[in-house]
Amino acid sequence: MQAYSLTVDKFLDHAAKWFPEREVVTAEGGGARRVSYAELHARSRRLSGALASLGLEFGNRIGVLAWNTQHHLEIYYAAMGMGLVCHTLNPRVTPEHLAAMINEAEERVLAVAASLAPLAAQLLPLCPSLEHLIVLDAVPADAPQGGAKVWAYERLLAEHGAQAAWGDFPEETPSGLCYTSGTTGRPKGVLYTHRSNYLHTIRALQADAFALTARDAVLIAVPMFHANGWGLPFAAPAVGAKVVLPGRQADGASLAKLIRDEGVTVAVGVQTVWLGVADHLDAAGGELPLLERVIIGGSYCPEALIRRLEARLGCLVQTSWGMTELSPLGTVSPADAGPGGARASGRPAMGVDLKLTDAEGQTLPEQRGVVGHLKVRGASVLDRYFKADADDLDAEGYFDTGDLASLDAEGNLTIRGRSKDLIKSGGEWINPAEIEAIVGRDPRVAQVAVIARPDPKWGERPLLIVEPCQGETITDTALLDLLRGKVADWWLPDRVVQVTAMPLAATGKIDKTRLRADFGGEGLFEGAGGDRRS
Amino acid sequence: MQAYSLTVDKFLDHAAKWFPEREVVTAEGGGARRVSYAELHARSRRLSGALASLGLEFGNRIGVLAWNTQHHLEIYYAAMGMGLVCHTLNPRVTPEHLAAMINEAEERVLAVAASLAPLAAQLLPLCPSLEHLIVLDAVPADAPQGGAKVWAYERLLAEHGAQAAWGDFPEETPSGLCYTSGTTGRPKGVLYTHRSNYLHTIRALQADAFALTARDAVLIAVPMFHANGWGLPFAAPAVGAKVVLPGRQADGASLAKLIRDEGVTVAVGVQTVWLGVADHLDAAGGELPLLERVIIGGSYCPEALIRRLEARLGCLVQTSWGMTELSPLGTVSPADAGPGGARASGRPAMGVDLKLTDAEGQTLPEQRGVVGHLKVRGASVLDRYFKADADDLDAEGYFDTGDLASLDAEGNLTIRGRSKDLIKSGGEWINPAEIEAIVGRDPRVAQVAVIARPDPKWGERPLLIVEPCQGETITDTALLDLLRGKVADWWLPDRVVQVTAMPLAATGKIDKTRLRADFGGEGLFEGAGGDRRS
Repeated sequence: MQAYSLTVDKFLDHAAKWFPEREVVTAEGGGARRVSYAELHARSRRLSGALASLGLEFGNRIGVLAWNTQHHLEIYYAAMGMGLVCHTLNPRVTPEHLAAMINEAEERVLAVAASLAPLAAQLLPLCPSLEHLIVLDAVPADAPQGGAKVWAYERLLAEHGAQAAWGDFPEETPSGLCYTSGTTGRPKGVLYTHRSNYLHTIRALQADAFALTARDAVLIAVPMFHANGWGLPFAAPAVGAKVVLPGRQADGASLAKLIRDEGVTVAVGVQTVWLGVADHLDAAGGELPLLERVIIGGSYCPEALIRRLEARLGCLVQTSWGMTELSPLGTVSPADAGPGGARASGRPAMGVDLKLTDAEGQTLPEQRGVVGHLKVRGASVLDRYFKADADDLDAEGYFDTGDLASLDAEGNLTIRGRSKDLIKSGGEWINPAEIEAIVGRDPRVAQVAVIARPDPKWGERPLLIVEPCQGETITDTALLDLLRGKVADWWLPDRVVQVTAMPLAATGKIDKTRLRADFGGEGLFEGAGGDRRS
Repeated sequence: MQAYSLTVDKFLDHAAKWFPEREVVTAEGGGARRVSYAELHARSRRLSGALASLGLEFGNRIGVLAWNTQHHLEIYYAAMGMGLVCHTLNPRVTPEHLAAMINEAEERVLAVAASLAPLAAQLLPLCPSLEHLIVLDAVPADAPQGGAKVWAYERLLAEHGAQAAWGDFPEETPSGLCYTSGTTGRPKGVLYTHRSNYLHTIRALQADAFALTARDAVLIAVPMFHANGWGLPFAAPAVGAKVVLPGRQADGASLAKLIRDEGVTVAVGVQTVWLGVADHLDAAGGELPLLERVIIGGSYCPEALIRRLEARLGCLVQTSWGMTELSPLGTVSPADAGPGGARASGRPAMGVDLKLTDAEGQTLPEQRGVVGHLKVRGASVLDRYFKADADDLDAEGYFDTGDLASLDAEGNLTIRGRSKDLIKSGGEWINPAEIEAIVGRDPRVAQVAVIARPDPKWGERPLLIVEPCQGETITDTALLDLLRGKVADWWLPDRVVQVTAMPLAATGKIDKTRLRADFGGEGLFEGAGGDRRS
């Protein structure tokens, strides 16, 4: 059969050929910027030529620090199509971390949203390799200072745009670079390839997964700098779906308007975004009659919250689990389940192999109804971190997700915490995630975390850290009472800390590294009572 | 990202892991044989060991002459899983053609349905390389005679079954062999690979294509010896759908019963099969309440027939176009169109590139609304026929389907005939398919074909051949009158032949080679009038 390279430029080629008039819409101020797939394809191909004019060559990496906009999507395809690596950067990461990533990737060109020009100005002195800065969206009022040449995107395209060749290289060619959140250590780079992104896309398009069709209008509210924007920038053109991009505006009112104005049928992003939409609808009234599905992921979503979203948004909620290292989709509940049908985080669509092992890596003989260490294998799963010396795989070729998980009788996945968060007390394991889930169900509790504290007798003991909801009070004793009878007595935390604001990482997850630094030291409570507020 | 070989054994591994209790059901007599995916997986893996015990090794080919049954499905996976090539043979082809295929493939083992044992007995003397005959389904009353050792399938499995290793070889490893129908020449072999079949499967599973889900029960009525059974033997396990196999019984009453008894939601096969079901329901009454979709393909289906099937079967009809050389899916109308939504043969799902060219191979500048020569490219498209000396591709890597086609404004494909059927008259082209379509719409016409006849003045001239419906008569003049005003005057056939039975090839298509031999000669009508019956 034919040698046919699985490269992602084919997605936009396909959209431009079969759905030339279908639109990509970006929210801008109160209005919208519109472009057809045919135009976007032509612009992206010309942008490739413009990037080449800056000296970028096959295999080079280009940094992108941007919101979800048309320009950002054009850069995805312009860079990947010509064989560059599109390195998406999270603007919420500290300038020092961003600079470390840019320097590790040896980038000479950085594309940056106009609203992030001040951040770019901070980065320039830290990244001496940067020679060109491309400013997206609009000409910035204040061009960043420093050694780099500053280009307004449209001017670069107009003056240096030239149709460049796309594809026609091996499918193992790197296409994208994305760093993990770094909540549990130094951020690590994941280098995607055309093959891994192509196969991820086709896998995600299965009817039991994202199930997008040409009839859909897809709101991509997950940032495009998060693990390929969950693959939507590839999946939507691949089926000719309309793409709706929110720019920087992710508040409930803006998204509700966008969903209504653009006839969005499928909306994708983290649950907090859709909670904002539900809150807005509660306050302002109104419905979203065309919305059929919301796909959430990124963190555990309680059943009650799913039911509230389904009721208020009038659609099916599909839950999912994924990781940057998985491109990112691991499992997803099916699109045809009907409202109320989401079961935990769903099953893996064909193309990802999962197994649960014990702490030593032995596959558990019974995979369902037990908690194990989650290992993953597949064509879109990482084998080795960017610039690492060795693979991160076991003998069977599986990647250790670092997650604890269980499967129900039908094979639906539930994440049960992080293996490195496990607390070893007297030689036995305590799972902080189970304690957090019970305490977190109390309506007075806004955020909860359990970490290990060194203990001379038991090795480690659990410490409960709680941020109460604003205006609520709850005693430490009452917090511990929530747990009695629900976990083994020796799992009960010895200490409680109440905080006014839980430290969060750039992805919005609780920063346990920070908590351990602040509260995990030995002797912290010497001489202090069990009740303490920071 | 991980090196992860795209091999088809992973489909059955996936089904056995995630849907262990889901069933594969085979109609047998009045009842049904049932097996779970977990059992079928275990049996297939043990069958691999049994095949190895016959001396079959990685890369060898095994012939299979069988109906759609559990045993046939087990052989698919047992053979492909261990790296053998599963060569599916069409029992309706002549013994001489079958023998030529078996000999070209140098096969030592032939698996054969019990009801086809007499055919196998005819083949043995013609195929001296055959050493083993495996008889499927049940122990045959009369074991075939000849030099080969005869094995009852279940005895072979019981006595020599041993779990064998699956996969773990390059994805470019050949997995299947299937010969084209040979309606237009000597049958040619298409050698599929694990990669081509894997990618075909994931492509077909897209929500805008076959869109199968774990909730579906799929009736595979297309023979498994036709181009991978349209990919369903891979696609159904890949999503954990229930599989329903009709065995040899493809009459309307049997299929209607099977659809009802097994709760079939998606039924796949050629239109004549579903017409049989509709006729049965008309005669016997009854409905098929759970049936949601019928996927047809294999030949052009008139709009009126689609509407009748949708009305009588109470479901959506999805039309499709494909070829053995395409694994076979080319285009398909979407699963979410709603009844009445099928447009021609649909669009290509992501993964197949199509283009229309002129007779010289130049891409037509405007692809829609014109008739052109259809060329195809993709990872599941043939590059070179089995044992051929050269690729069958153009400079851009496209395979010439030999079909004429057009695309409507939305990109939906309609096949407009075969390029080699085109008639060159006075330097201009006449398309027989257009004439056939017009004449075929007359209710008195059962079958119609137009072929070229050599002409000393014009080069070629069209000859109209018609098989009237039983009990109907229509004059040649009336037949030509159907065309007047609908085609250019110089397209009007010079001669008409009426036949009582149109010659058909093994696939059920009209055998134009035979027609040309019988009626296409020069001087055929010398001295005869225009009206002639054979």
